[in-house]
Amino acid sequence: MSEKIAIIGGAGELGFGLALRWAQAGQSILIGSREEKKAQDAAARAKATVPGADVTGLENAKAVALASVVVLAVPFSAQAGIVKNIKPALKNAIVVDSSVPLAATVGGRPTRLLGLWEGSAAQAARDLLPGIPVISAFHNVSAEVLQDLSISPDCDVLICGDDAGAKERLSALVRLIPGLRPLDAGPLEMSRVVEGITALLISVNRRYKAHHSGIRITGLNPGA
Amino acid sequence: MSEKIAIIGGAGELGFGLALRWAQAGQSILIGSREEKKAQDAAARAKATVPGADVTGLENAKAVALASVVVLAVPFSAQAGIVKNIKPALKNAIVVDSSVPLAATVGGRPTRLLGLWEGSAAQAARDLLPGIPVISAFHNVSAEVLQDLSISPDCDVLICGDDAGAKERLSALVRLIPGLRPLDAGPLEMSRVVEGITALLISVNRRYKAHHSGIRITGLNPGA
Repeated sequence: MSEKIAIIGGAGELGFGLALRWAQAGQSILIGSREEKKAQDAAARAKATVPGADVTGLENAKAVALASVVVLAVPFSAQAGIVKNIKPALKNAIVVDSSVPLAATVGGRPTRLLGLWEGSAAQAARDLLPGIPVISAFHNVSAEVLQDLSISPDCDVLICGDDAGAKERLSALVRLIPGLRPLDAGPLEMSRVVEGITALLISVNRRYKAHHSGIRITGLNPGA
Repeated sequence: MSEKIAIIGGAGELGFGLALRWAQAGQSILIGSREEKKAQDAAARAKATVPGADVTGLENAKAVALASVVVLAVPFSAQAGIVKNIKPALKNAIVVDSSVPLAATVGGRPTRLLGLWEGSAAQAARDLLPGIPVISAFHNVSAEVLQDLSISPDCDVLICGDDAGAKERLSALVRLIPGLRPLDAGPLEMSRVVEGITALLISVNRRYKAHHSGIRITGLNPGA
């Protein structure tokens, strides 16, 4: 199945990293931004980095209207506003939320999370998008590593969601990026743990003066 | 530094696994249980499994009175009662909590956690033990793997706590068990994420029909 991937926040660190990696794998990418100019600049940068890349920059809602998979790679503080903005443009697409409600959003520490009434940022997104398959992923992948094509990521992508088909479609896209392994982590409510792992990795990065930490689940069968 | 390790709940799955592994590494182990007979039986089993093991079975408070490191390997439902019971016997020991407040404790799912007012089981233990260094660890290590000496664990031990010295002492003990790597995950409040990872691993185990899943942090410097 061929997917058309819109990356909302595709000019940001995580979004741009995913755009580069998927473009490298031959996927057709729509970079979305609130300002179309910013999206076009990012698309041009992606094309300069990955020769032959099929990347187009568009305003968020325009990108979403053309997509079968929409990845939300936006700061948590922007999540609700952007979700409401793109909602009317969503057409049979699955939505992949990657936001992490770090307390830094409201001036707190990046090693602490905000407690959200919905339980997690992913569940908050789902509540804003009734009837649309919302899953979550990519919280724990280093955006720096994704953007540096000279190194390979070493990380599992823990996917949470209540729509098995959507999780499988995303898993296929994750497998296109060498070094990433998709894992079904359970229902969308499990995203609160996976989002929390980001705070944990920030804490570990600090203590070990690392920048590229990630996570692997061990002890699974080789086929996982 | 030579430690005397008391494992409270040492007749249980996780506690007994740790007793076996540390006994194998030549450590002196006190297995504690609420019933001394149960502790003695577990000590006998440990000696039968690890020839030459230095393992003694005692009632909880007696074991604690002799220990420099006290590992709480008890179900969350028993944690508060046991902590109150052993408190008067604690003498300059550090306390390592490993409990996970799975919702299964109150008839809920093992893939969900109870929300604790203190933030985590580890912080709940600390609140009951003012002035005593309480750290947390071992939440994510498979008890089955620890008990099966024919296989090696493949897991990082994420240690949370506010006492750097206590974390270093525990790290030294973790390094005695091949296959486990101690990592400083941050302050005790980070235990809420690490405890949550247990629910995540239970979810992943189910989905992948695995029993031995664990966690590794990737991207750290080799020395970590």
